[in-house]
Order: sequence, then C-alpha cells, then structure tokens
Amino acid sequence: MNALPIPARETEPAIDAAVLIERLARDARAAQRGLAAMPSIARQAALEQAAAALRRAAPQILEANAVDVANGAAAGLSGAMIDRLRLDPARIEAMAAGVAEVAALDDPVGRIIDETRRPNGMVLRRVRVPIGLIGIIYESRPNVTADAAALCVRSGNAVLLRGGSEAVHSNRAIHAALAEGLAAGGVPADAVQLVPTQDRAAVGAMLAASGLIDMIVPRGGKSLVARVQADARVPVLAHLDGINHTFVDRAADPAMARDIAFNAKLRRPGVCGSMETLLIDALFPDPHGLVEPLLAAGCELRGDARACAIDPRIKPADPADWDTEYLDAVLSVAVVDGLDAALAHIACHASGHTDAIVTGDADAAERFLGAVDSAIVMHNASSQFADGGEFGLGAEIGIATGRLHARGPVALEGLTTYKWLVLGSGQIRP
Amino acid sequence: MNALPIPARETEPAIDAAVLIERLARDARAAQRGLAAMPSIARQAALEQAAAALRRAAPQILEANAVDVANGAAAGLSGAMIDRLRLDPARIEAMAAGVAEVAALDDPVGRIIDETRRPNGMVLRRVRVPIGLIGIIYESRPNVTADAAALCVRSGNAVLLRGGSEAVHSNRAIHAALAEGLAAGGVPADAVQLVPTQDRAAVGAMLAASGLIDMIVPRGGKSLVARVQADARVPVLAHLDGINHTFVDRAADPAMARDIAFNAKLRRPGVCGSMETLLIDALFPDPHGLVEPLLAAGCELRGDARACAIDPRIKPADPADWDTEYLDAVLSVAVVDGLDAALAHIACHASGHTDAIVTGDADAAERFLGAVDSAIVMHNASSQFADGGEFGLGAEIGIATGRLHARGPVALEGLTTYKWLVLGSGQIRP
Repeated sequence: MNALPIPARETEPAIDAAVLIERLARDARAAQRGLAAMPSIARQAALEQAAAALRRAAPQILEANAVDVANGAAAGLSGAMIDRLRLDPARIEAMAAGVAEVAALDDPVGRIIDETRRPNGMVLRRVRVPIGLIGIIYESRPNVTADAAALCVRSGNAVLLRGGSEAVHSNRAIHAALAEGLAAGGVPADAVQLVPTQDRAAVGAMLAASGLIDMIVPRGGKSLVARVQADARVPVLAHLDGINHTFVDRAADPAMARDIAFNAKLRRPGVCGSMETLLIDALFPDPHGLVEPLLAAGCELRGDARACAIDPRIKPADPADWDTEYLDAVLSVAVVDGLDAALAHIACHASGHTDAIVTGDADAAERFLGAVDSAIVMHNASSQFADGGEFGLGAEIGIATGRLHARGPVALEGLTTYKWLVLGSGQIRP
Repeated sequence: MNALPIPARETEPAIDAAVLIERLARDARAAQRGLAAMPSIARQAALEQAAAALRRAAPQILEANAVDVANGAAAGLSGAMIDRLRLDPARIEAMAAGVAEVAALDDPVGRIIDETRRPNGMVLRRVRVPIGLIGIIYESRPNVTADAAALCVRSGNAVLLRGGSEAVHSNRAIHAALAEGLAAGGVPADAVQLVPTQDRAAVGAMLAASGLIDMIVPRGGKSLVARVQADARVPVLAHLDGINHTFVDRAADPAMARDIAFNAKLRRPGVCGSMETLLIDALFPDPHGLVEPLLAAGCELRGDARACAIDPRIKPADPADWDTEYLDAVLSVAVVDGLDAALAHIACHASGHTDAIVTGDADAAERFLGAVDSAIVMHNASSQFADGGEFGLGAEIGIATGRLHARGPVALEGLTTYKWLVLGSGQIRP
C-alpha cells in the first residue's frame, strides 16, 4: 500500500485547544457520574462487549493501521517505531483479550478500606471511589487506546485519550470499536473519548486542565514523560527513569547473585525494570563469576576503577554513567565497601523505581529494605519483576516513582481514591 | 509593652530565595533519613522532650509573643488577627499537651498495608513510609509551628516551617524550644527547620521546589490557600472552600433535621465544616420548624423563591450565594424537588468538603452516599463533625478536598506513602 496523505477531514477548523479540552472534559465528567453509578457487573459486561467489538472490527482496524504504517514509512519513522505502530491479527486479538482480562479483574470501587465506630455511635467508613477523569497522553503504540480505556472503565473513571499523530487512524478505528461495544453495554458515550485533534496545543491544554482532568498518565518515551512532568498543572502518575540498582552483598550466594544479575539486565534490557547499575560488595567472594556471563552474552560493562580490575573487558565508566538509564545491553558496575557504601550510592543515584539486594544475611537485607526509599525494594529477586502483571495486579496503567497517591506498579486500585462516609443517627457536635 | 521595631538582625543579607530553600531542603532531606531510621519509640520520646521543652520555655515564648502582639497592634492588625496571634500560659500549655498527644499516637510508619505471595514464592508487601519533606506555609497562629512539627516528626517526615511575618518572634521562640527538646531526643537538627527569612520570595521558592519538597500544606485563610494552589509545582494538601450542603429529605425526622441543621450552621459558623447551604425537599413536612430556630438565633437566611415563602425573614439569595462560603451566621436555603434535584444542586455547587443528608429512608440515604462525591458524605449527622479529632485520628494536619493521595481530615496516615517490598529467594523472571 502506498503512503496516503492525511485525508482532508483531518484538517480541523481552528478551535482553541483549551476550549476544546474544556468541552471534552466537562462532557466526560458528566458521563463519569453515569459510569460510576453503573453496577460493577454492568461495567464488566460492557467491557466484554468492547472486547468482542474489537475482534469484530479487526479488518477495519488493520486497514486503518496500514494507512498509519505507510504514512510512517513515508515520513521516515525508524524500524523500531514502525514496529511499535504495526498491528496484525495476533496483536488485535491480544488487545481484545487484554480488555476481557481487565473486565474480569475485581472491581476496586466500593471496597471498604476501614470502618470505625465513634463513642457517640457514628460509624466512619472509608470506601474506594473512582478518581474521576483520567487523561492518557501516549505515543505510537495503538494498543494503549484499548488498555488504558479498559482500566479506566473498570475502575469507574472517564478517560480522555490523546495518542500520537503517527497512530491517528489506528487509534480512531480502535476507539470506534471500543465505543460501539461500551455503548451497547450502557456506558455513557462521553466516558471514553479520543481527543479529536492532533494539534499539539491540545496536549498543553490537557496538562493545564487543573480541576477538569484529575490525573494525567503519560505512556511513552522519556522525552514525553519529561515534558508532561515539567508542564503539567494536573497531578501526573509516571516514572521518568528506571535507574535500578542491584547490590550484591558479601553474604550473597554467588550462583543466585549471578543468575539474578544476568536476568535483571539481559532478560529484556529495554524495560523500565531492567537493572542499570550493579553494585558489588568489595568482600563478595566471586566478582568475576558475577560479570562473566554478562560479558559472555555481549553486554557492555562500564566500571569504576575497582570494577575494571575484575575483568579487562570492563571499560571505564564516565561520571554520567551512574545516572544513565541505558535501556540496552549496557551496565555500569561499581565495587563498594559494604552495605553502607551501597546505600549511599543508591541514595545519590537511584531514580526511585526498583532497587535490589542479594544477600543471605537477614540483617543486611532488613537494613537495605528499610533504608532504600524506592517505590520497589527487593531482596533476592530480579528487578525485572517490576511489573503490574508480575505483582498479581492483572494489568497496569503504569509504574509511578512519585511519592504521593500510588507508587510502583499502578493498576485498578491506583485509579481510585476514597471518600469518608459518616453514618449517623442524628448526632450533633457538642 | 510598646510596639518594638523589628530589630536590626531581622534584616537578612540579600540571598536568593531559591538558593536558600534548596539548601534548607537538601539539609532537611538528609536529616529525614536519620529521622526515619529512628525507632518509633525514640521519635515518640523526642516529642515528649519537645513538649517538656515548650513548657520550660513558656516565659521566653510569652516574651517573644508580646513583641509580635505589640508590633501587630502598632501595624493596625484587626482584633481577630491579634487574638489568633496572642499566646498566654494556657495556650502554651495546650500547645505542649498537643505535642505530647501526637507523641502518643500510633506510628503509621512500617505498618503493613497488604501482603501477598506469588505462585513463584515471592512475597510482596506494601509498607507505610514517610513522604519525605513536608512544607508548611501558615499565617498568624503560632501554635501551627508546634502542631505541624509534631505531626511530621511522629510520621518520620522532615518539615520546613514558613510562618507569617506577624508571628516571627513567637515562631522563633517556639521553634527554638522544640528544637532543643527534639535534639535532646536524638532527632537530627535539620529535620525541623523554620525558614529563617520573612522574604516573601521564600514562599514562592518553596512552592516551586519540585523534587525537593514532597508536599506543601497551607494553613490559613482562603487567599493563602488560593495562592498556594495556583502557584505550587509541588503537590498541595488543602481545601480552598467548605461549601457544605445539608439536604433535608422528605423522609427526615423533623426534630432530628432541625437539630442537625442548627448545629451544622451555628455551633461554630466559622469552621470549614460549617453548613453553608440548606437544601429542603419540597415534600418535607415542616420547613418552618427547620428554619425557625436558625432565624430566632439571629442567623441570616438567604433563599430562593420557594424558601423565601417559608418565612418573611428569609431574604432573597443572589446567584453568587450558592457558591459562597460565609464562615459566618449566614445560610443560603433552597427548596428542591426531591433527592435528584438535591444531588444536581450539590454536583454543581459543592466544594467537595462535607455534604450531608438527613432522612429516615435508607434507600435515599444510600443513593446520596453513593452519588455525592465529596471527601466526606454524611447521613443523619452534623457537618461540624468534619474534623480529624472527631474522626478519631488524634490530630490533623488539615482537611483535603483534592482527589488524590488523601481526602477529608488528614492525620498521620496521610503524611505517609508506601513502598513495595519484594521478598524473594533467588527468583528470576522467565
């Protein structure tokens, strides 16, 4: 198929982006009240209908996606970007299956967090409620349209979806299918909206929509996340970096440490849970056994002076290496004088994502787990487990390294907040 | 005592506010790690020492306070502001007792939120940890210095305190006493800091200190909170307005409704939990019995046309009345056509603080509790109960109407976040 020009209807009339986003958000907020009032089982059934509609619409989605892929190729997108953009029947089936899986997850809405009875007989109950309106700002992966919409609907939230311009036809086709299925299931139409313009000012308007959009989740590369974090007036749930450390303590089992380090770096070097810095206790007995499998597998190691002494294939690290998320088969390595030095290195360089200790010393593990203040702190496990699915959450809207509201893998619970119910029998305050 | 000029040492050398706040915040963050590492019982003991130090320092605090009061009087502060500023031995004792009470509260830090075991044997545990560095920006009440510091220290957080210039001598004397007691108890000195300048640019620098200050809590009037919310790049925990509604349903017990309405408005009209709008179901049998005690007590009532028909003393409301927080013996009153109309009014005008229904109809109550999305939703109780102490939280850092992290009365738990601990035995991800 030849690259197609963006059809004429894509050229929207000039409309102020802030006005547009305000209108969409107000409609979405009104729809959210209807969505939140639906019984859990009805939201569940609607998502099952959405999954079915996605499957039925596979031909149209593939056709739309082919336009995006052709346009992307003509615009000179890289192979990796084209791959992220491209859909095939298996990917559409996976997307539909994902929506059905989210439908099957336990509903967090209405769950009672705690309940107390006051001496005057009033009962105080905290119950989970949807946050309200979530904004998703994402790049080229069209499956985010379905994933994010499903998580928001399951948790009773309305959502404004703003995908990348390179995936505009795919996103529209996916959204149309979702909308059809959700409408058949009784979800108010405005609860799941695709922002109908690729004007970049719409992103700025979303980020500024304090009081209209309750939370923004950026899904994409570091430059997108950095821009969103820098400009947003709305709370942002995200992580910028995953500069994850694994500290191999003197009391680590050498074979366990070797396997964990290898897996943490090389299972999939490009995921955010990938280890980026290996810290080796100077008294760990087998440092060469630790780095050898990594080097043999082609991983580039960049070390401090003591790490370079372990193996001549280890190159000297630059100071910037300790603050770099490679997302590749590259690893920085430092030899440190025990747990305290490891903690000091982590306090200085970690991005608050996932940091791990490997040790057989329970006291050292306890100190590490207490002192490291990242969203996820691990003992004797690979940092590649940093994932909502692996945590048993069923799916994730993202991983958060901020300190408030939700940290680490965020799934349905993180898309809720709570309210206090006060159940009285006529109490007045003295 | 005569009004004293601010002594010469108050004139600080010109130092860039952002540089100053960054230095203070970095020192505080370093100290927070030490504070968080202290056992709960040690933080508790240190707060008890701080309470004792406050009691010992009463003469110096009163002397400093007299300077502030005299300066305030000379500067023409209103009687109400002078009253908020003034300390006496009883108020100092209450402040010290408050610190000791916070010391006695259960420590939220380290509390396990939940724990699961994965099929591969990994244990996932969410534990509460301090947020980090809290910034408190407040006005003329010097007791906030002690209250806020105590809550932060109990929950393992460092705190930067920025009080109003009218209370500068009082705040310094209170802080000096607290610091002495906390230091004797082993709390790192930089964990509780009073911003040492009254330069207003320091407030702007605190609000901009994203990544250095984790959360800002403004304590004061609406203009302070509005400024903080508008300018902050750091998350803010606050409420701007408490436009609280009480809906008297057709099935309300008339005597209960009368007592709740009277208490909700007039117990203390100036607190944020005070009722500002009374919504009366058109089918409620005794509307005059509802408003009569309020009118008899001198409360000004402003009503819509149907409310004005209840009693000639009710004045016509302006449209702005429905969005006004009077904080005074003034109340807006509307007659509405049942629960749905009440919900529509509340959805349009509530500020998300505290809204209540009075009814004997369990279905109506359930619908109201489900549909109203405020931080606190009450059934058959006075909105004046909206208070951390009344909720059994022991104390509160504030009441939040935002949707994320913490809502309603926020106490120690709201000053914590969580991290995930992953306890493995060598697991690697397939």
